[in-house]
Amino acid sequence: MTQDISANDHSGGDVGGRTARKRGAILEAATIVFLRNGYLGAGMDQIALLADVSKQTVYKQFTSKEALFIEIVTNLTNDASDIVHGVAPELAQGDDLHAYLAEYGYRQLTIVLTPRLMQLRRVVIGEAGRFPDLGKALYESGPKRAMAAMAAMIQRLADRELLRIEDAATAASHFNWLVMSQPLNQAMLLGDAGIPGPEALRQHAAAAARMFLAAYGAR
Amino acid sequence: MTQDISANDHSGGDVGGRTARKRGAILEAATIVFLRNGYLGAGMDQIALLADVSKQTVYKQFTSKEALFIEIVTNLTNDASDIVHGVAPELAQGDDLHAYLAEYGYRQLTIVLTPRLMQLRRVVIGEAGRFPDLGKALYESGPKRAMAAMAAMIQRLADRELLRIEDAATAASHFNWLVMSQPLNQAMLLGDAGIPGPEALRQHAAAAARMFLAAYGAR
Repeated sequence: MTQDISANDHSGGDVGGRTARKRGAILEAATIVFLRNGYLGAGMDQIALLADVSKQTVYKQFTSKEALFIEIVTNLTNDASDIVHGVAPELAQGDDLHAYLAEYGYRQLTIVLTPRLMQLRRVVIGEAGRFPDLGKALYESGPKRAMAAMAAMIQRLADRELLRIEDAATAASHFNWLVMSQPLNQAMLLGDAGIPGPEALRQHAAAAARMFLAAYGAR
Repeated sequence: MTQDISANDHSGGDVGGRTARKRGAILEAATIVFLRNGYLGAGMDQIALLADVSKQTVYKQFTSKEALFIEIVTNLTNDASDIVHGVAPELAQGDDLHAYLAEYGYRQLTIVLTPRLMQLRRVVIGEAGRFPDLGKALYESGPKRAMAAMAAMIQRLADRELLRIEDAATAASHFNWLVMSQPLNQAMLLGDAGIPGPEALRQHAAAAARMFLAAYGAR
């Protein structure tokens, strides 16, 4: 903790964000090492070597291997979440609700089902028995955030009387898993080759949106 | 291959299923070692030691570590699948359809979400990037079989005009994932402590069945 603060305090010669650049290099190197060797197999020495910094610098910035891994998980999943929900447009008057939801689901699928995020998720799950804090970090910044944003979107549609729901959180969970589960399960178990192609994802998202509207559509 | 056959052919003194007992002991020992050390970390020597047989016997019975692991995955998931779908009763005339589907979902959840199956699934996912055949074995004997049995159940209900579906496989996938996803995702990421309790699973299955009937119920 104190180490972390001192890293910023004592960087007297830090012009132009040298610390930030080092931090970025460590994160980039650590992602590569974690994905290649798994969590247990990744060494702080390897990460330092690949980032071209001293091992001491790595510890100064991140205090522990666990803290470093959690930072990576949080960054990657938050970035994905922000892209999915940040760019989600509102439904315009007269737009087709099914097309809107299908597009929302498709966008989420293409942003989440990337080889890098899937590899990271596999590493986290593989270690969740031994290191539940890693899984917790991914859970909080991934599905939990995604479903909160989705619940807000669904609530806005319900307020406009376009959906008929009892509870936005439950409806969001249903929509999220109708969209995500089957492709995610495939990507988890079958490796990156199991990530469905764009056409399959479009059809899957459209079917999920149809089912969702059959249950929750107003009328 | 030839080794496997000769194991049975030359066991002249094998009275009372000594080979079968050894095979059982190896499977039991291997399950423990795989779950404790992961797939990469598990050694055939450790497995032989724990099963109290020679390493040669292990190879005679299973030819490779991969074959042994796939046998375990297939056995455990097939057993679970058979229990879920073997004991599923038909809906009797006059029975409540929602209660029937909620019970079906709840039964599947309690049988699949055991610490042993969840630990195994985490090991498989952790290695799916390097060894996609392990994940394929689990995929085929787990979700794929489960959804085929579910599609047959749904088709029977549709034939009795209790459900209104376009395609039984799609409806089965929707039902399966409405029921399984959220608790399974929690169990994957949060470890065994993330497996929800019976009351939470009952409520979850009931909500999934309600949503499913809102979309596919006949009326």
